[in-house]
Amino acid sequence: MKLSSEFKQILDNAIEALHQRTFYAQYPEHPSPKIYGETADADGQEKFKAHLNKQFVELDQHRADKWIGDEESPYLQEKLGIEYPFLEVDTLIERANESFNGWRKASPEVRAAVLIDSLERVKNRFFEIAYATMHTTGQGYMMAFQASGPHAADRALEAIAAGYEELKRFPENAVWEKPMGKYNLKLNKSWRAVPKGIGLVIGCSTFPTWNSVPGIYASLITGNPVIVKPHPGAVLPIAIFVSEITAALKDAGYSINTCQLAVDQPKDPLTKKLAEHPDIKIIDFTGNSEFGNYLENLQGKHVFTEKTGVNSIIVDSADNVDKIAQNIAFSISLYSGQMCTAPQNIFVPEDGIRTADKNVSFDDFTQKIVDNINGLVDNPKAGPFVLGAIQNKLTCERVDNIKKLDAKVVLDSRTIENPMFKNARIATPAILVVDGGKEDVYGSELFGPIAFLIKTKDTKQSVEIAQKMAKEHGAISCGAYTTDEDTKEYIADEMGLAATPVSFNLVGGIYVNQHATFSDFHVTGGNPAGNASFTNPEFVIRRFTWVGTRELAE
Amino acid sequence: MKLSSEFKQILDNAIEALHQRTFYAQYPEHPSPKIYGETADADGQEKFKAHLNKQFVELDQHRADKWIGDEESPYLQEKLGIEYPFLEVDTLIERANESFNGWRKASPEVRAAVLIDSLERVKNRFFEIAYATMHTTGQGYMMAFQASGPHAADRALEAIAAGYEELKRFPENAVWEKPMGKYNLKLNKSWRAVPKGIGLVIGCSTFPTWNSVPGIYASLITGNPVIVKPHPGAVLPIAIFVSEITAALKDAGYSINTCQLAVDQPKDPLTKKLAEHPDIKIIDFTGNSEFGNYLENLQGKHVFTEKTGVNSIIVDSADNVDKIAQNIAFSISLYSGQMCTAPQNIFVPEDGIRTADKNVSFDDFTQKIVDNINGLVDNPKAGPFVLGAIQNKLTCERVDNIKKLDAKVVLDSRTIENPMFKNARIATPAILVVDGGKEDVYGSELFGPIAFLIKTKDTKQSVEIAQKMAKEHGAISCGAYTTDEDTKEYIADEMGLAATPVSFNLVGGIYVNQHATFSDFHVTGGNPAGNASFTNPEFVIRRFTWVGTRELAE
Repeated sequence: MKLSSEFKQILDNAIEALHQRTFYAQYPEHPSPKIYGETADADGQEKFKAHLNKQFVELDQHRADKWIGDEESPYLQEKLGIEYPFLEVDTLIERANESFNGWRKASPEVRAAVLIDSLERVKNRFFEIAYATMHTTGQGYMMAFQASGPHAADRALEAIAAGYEELKRFPENAVWEKPMGKYNLKLNKSWRAVPKGIGLVIGCSTFPTWNSVPGIYASLITGNPVIVKPHPGAVLPIAIFVSEITAALKDAGYSINTCQLAVDQPKDPLTKKLAEHPDIKIIDFTGNSEFGNYLENLQGKHVFTEKTGVNSIIVDSADNVDKIAQNIAFSISLYSGQMCTAPQNIFVPEDGIRTADKNVSFDDFTQKIVDNINGLVDNPKAGPFVLGAIQNKLTCERVDNIKKLDAKVVLDSRTIENPMFKNARIATPAILVVDGGKEDVYGSELFGPIAFLIKTKDTKQSVEIAQKMAKEHGAISCGAYTTDEDTKEYIADEMGLAATPVSFNLVGGIYVNQHATFSDFHVTGGNPAGNASFTNPEFVIRRFTWVGTRELAE
Repeated sequence: MKLSSEFKQILDNAIEALHQRTFYAQYPEHPSPKIYGETADADGQEKFKAHLNKQFVELDQHRADKWIGDEESPYLQEKLGIEYPFLEVDTLIERANESFNGWRKASPEVRAAVLIDSLERVKNRFFEIAYATMHTTGQGYMMAFQASGPHAADRALEAIAAGYEELKRFPENAVWEKPMGKYNLKLNKSWRAVPKGIGLVIGCSTFPTWNSVPGIYASLITGNPVIVKPHPGAVLPIAIFVSEITAALKDAGYSINTCQLAVDQPKDPLTKKLAEHPDIKIIDFTGNSEFGNYLENLQGKHVFTEKTGVNSIIVDSADNVDKIAQNIAFSISLYSGQMCTAPQNIFVPEDGIRTADKNVSFDDFTQKIVDNINGLVDNPKAGPFVLGAIQNKLTCERVDNIKKLDAKVVLDSRTIENPMFKNARIATPAILVVDGGKEDVYGSELFGPIAFLIKTKDTKQSVEIAQKMAKEHGAISCGAYTTDEDTKEYIADEMGLAATPVSFNLVGGIYVNQHATFSDFHVTGGNPAGNASFTNPEFVIRRFTWVGTRELAE
C-alpha cells in the first residue's frame, strides 16, 4: 500500500489546516442528498435497522468467546438487541501484541494511507452511524449525523495529520561532523520513532465516536495497536468505525488485530482489567472525573483524559441582551445539556447587565432566559430535535432532585412530546437562581439539562468564581459577554490562567458548545477537566519515543 | 528589551540546528586561550578562590532569612566555606508568584533576548564555573570546563530555541470563516500560550549545571518563574548561572525573583516542601530513582525526571578487538563512572567475540579491558585527569563492598596519586566477571567505578538481557559492537523498543558516554531512567497550555 496522490492531497490539506487554524472540513457536515446521494439517508436508516436483534459480524474478530450486548434506545426505551463478539482481556492483549511488529514497521506514509482509507470507507456509512448514534446516545438527528460522522472523521484526520507531521518533523538520518582541530569527527546518526505500545481507548455514552476517534487514530498513526473499549450503552457507532479500520488494515495486508473492539457489560466490566494490564501503555478516556483520576494515577501509562468540568458564562455588558438570552438558551437546551461543552453556570452581576442606554436587571435577564427556553422547547419544529433524548436514566433522577438544592427553581424541567418517538426519554432544561456565595450548590458538575443563573457583586467576582471553578473542578468552555475591551482582555487573561478557552459575544447561529476541528483546542489540558489537548502536538508526541543510533562514518 | 540582530542570529542558528540534528555549538568547548583570552583560566581560578569562605552575595536575593553552605571539595576533602542566602519555602513561592505576571506577559522574543543575554554573561565565567565544578563534583578540569560551561550553555540555548519555536509554531490569530450555505460564519480566533506556573528545578551533585539548565531555560522561555534547588554539595556552579540569569532579568526590567536559588542543607532539606507546594506546577529532577518516582507520583504537577539507569554494552563481533577494549576502558574510567551515560554491564558471548580470522575469547577480552584500564589509570599524564575524584563518600563505600557481590573481581579498585591534589578522593574502576544468569548481581545501578563483564550464551541473549534491564531498570545509553548488518538492525530494533539509544562500533576519540546537544536525545523518556526527553519538543510543550479565544468578526 502506498500513499496515493489523492490521499496525499487530503493529508497535505489537513496539515496545512493544522497550521492555519482556520476552517477546514474534509467531510461535509450537512446530510444533504446533493452531497451524499439521494438515497443515502434512507439506505443508512435501513442499514441501521438491519443491525437490530442480530450479531454484529463484520468486525472479523474471529474466535469470539461469546456474544453480548446491552444497548437501549433513549428514543424508544427499548433494547436494540445487537450482540458483539466478546473477548477476554488476555486474548485481546495477545492479539494486539501479535499485530504490533507488523504495524510499527509500516512507514508513516503507509499508516496514513491505511487510516485515510478507513475514513473514506466510513464516509459511506455516515447515515447508518447517525441512526446508530441517535438510538444509543439520544442525540438529535442533525447532531448525531454531524458529530458521529463528518466531524468525527475530521477529528480522526486531524490526529493522522498531527501524528504524521511529528513523525516527519525531524530528519531520519544526519551526518554529524564535529571539528576536532586536526581532524573532523564524523558520525552517521539515525533516529526512529518507537511506538509506546498498546493503546486503550475508553469511550463514553454520549459521544461514542467524536470523543474516541482522536485517541484511536493518534495511537494508530504513531504505530501503536489499539483496543477500543466502548461504553456498553453506545457500541454500534464506534463498532462501525472500527470495522472499517480493520477492513482497511486487512486490505493493506496488516493484521485486523491492530485495532480491536473490546465490548463489555455493566455487570462484568473489562476496563480496569485492561487499563491495569502492563502491556497497555497508552490510555485515552472520556468520562467521569473519578474514573479519569484513577486512570491518571496508574503507573507506567501515558494517559489522556477528558473528564467532567463546570462551564461558565460571564455576562457583563451587551449591545442586545435579547440576542444573548436567545443564544444562551439554545446552548443550554442543545442535546439537553449532555455536551461536555454545555454551559452550567451563568454569572450575572446583581446590578444587572450594562447596555448602551440602561442596565437590564438580573431578574429581567433571568426571565428572558426562561422565556427563550420555553419558546424553543415548545416549538414543535425545533424543541424535540434540539433537545434530543436523555441518554442515562440517572440524568433524569438528577433533574428530579433539583428541588432539594438550596437554590430557587425559576424554570422546572418537564417533558415534551417528540412526534416521531412517543416513548422518548425527554427532560427540558431547568433553570435555578442562586447567590454567588453558594458555591456548594453550583460548584460541581450537574450533568444534563440543569443550569444556574448566579448573582454576583460585579463582573470581577463573576470572573473570580468562574476561574476558581475551572481551576478546582475543570472547565472545557467559557462564554463571556462584554462590550468593554479592557474587561474582555481581563476575562481572557484570567480564564486563560485557568486554561479555559473563552468565546466572546456569541449570538446568532454559533454557540459556546461547538468546538471546531483544526482550530479550537478542545480540552486544553491545563485544568482538571482533563490532561489531553486535542489539537496540541503533545497529544501525538507522547505516543512514541524518539530513539537514536549512531556510528562512526566510514 | 528587544531581540537584537546578533541574538536573533544565535536563536535562528539554534533552531536550524534543532532541525538539522547535526553538530552545532554556540559556545566553544575548548578552554583555549586563543578563544577565551590569555588570562581567562587564571582569572577564573582567582575568581573561584575569591568565593571561598565568603558569602555569595551576587544573587541579589535581598532579605535572606539566614546564610548556609555545606560544600566540600572532593579534591581537597575540605569545606569550601561558601555561604548562600537561605529563604523559607513560603518566601520563595511568594516572590515567584509576584514575578509571574511580569514575565508571563513578556513576548517570546523578549524572553529569548533576556535568556540569551544571560548565556553571553555566563560565557565570561566559564573558567570560574569550571573550578567551581571541579571542587564540588570531583570532575576533571576538562570535563568540568566543557560540561558545566559551554555544553551546559548550549543545552540552555537548545531549550530556548525549542521553546521559542513551539511558541511561534502556530498563528496567534486567525480569521475562521465557515461557509454556511447562504452566508459565511466568520470568527476572529486568537490563541495564547499560558505558562503552567512556577517551575522547580532540582539539581544533582555530579552535573550541577549540565543537568539543570535545560529545565531552567525551558521553563523560563515558556513564561514560568523558576526556583532552582541545587544539591547541597554542588551549589556554586549553578549559583553563578542563576546570578547571571537574574542580572539579565534585572537589566531588562524584569523581577530578579523570576529565577531564584533555593539552597538547603542535608539536615533540613527543602525539596519535598517545595515540590508538594500547590503553586509548583512543573518539576525538573536529576537524581536517584526513589526520589524521582516520588516526584512523578505527585498530583497536579508536570514532572520531568532523569533518574538512575543500568547501561549496557553488547559485544558481538569486531574488526579490531583491541580498539574496542581501549574505548570501553576509557568509557568506564571517565569521571570514575559517575556519569549517567557510563556503561556498567558489558555483555560478551561465552564463545568470545567473532573477528575476521578467529574468535577472541571471553577471558582474553576481559584481560584486554583490565590491561587498558590499568594502562590508563597508571599513566600519570592521563589517569588523574580522566578519573577525577569521587563526589560522594558513599560511592567509595559501594566500591569497597564489591567483594561481597557474587561475582569474580578481576580488577579491584585502588587509589592513585593526583600530583596536584594529594588529598583527592580517588577510586579506580573495578571490573567483575559474572554469569548472565545472575541478574540479581548486576541488575541494579552500582553508581561509580564498577563494571561487569557478563558472560552470555550468545548475542541474542545479550540483547534480551540488556533490553530487559533497560525496560525494568532504565537505561540512558547503550554501546554495541558488531560487524554484521542484520545483527546491528536487530540490536537497534530491540533496544529501540526499550527506548535506549545505541552507539555502534565506537572506537578512538568518541565514547558512549557523550551525548551531544541538538542531536542526541539525552534521556529518551521511554524507559524507567526518566520521563523527560531533552531534545524532544514535548520537553517544552508541556510547560504551557494553548488557550484560545474567539468572537464573531464584525
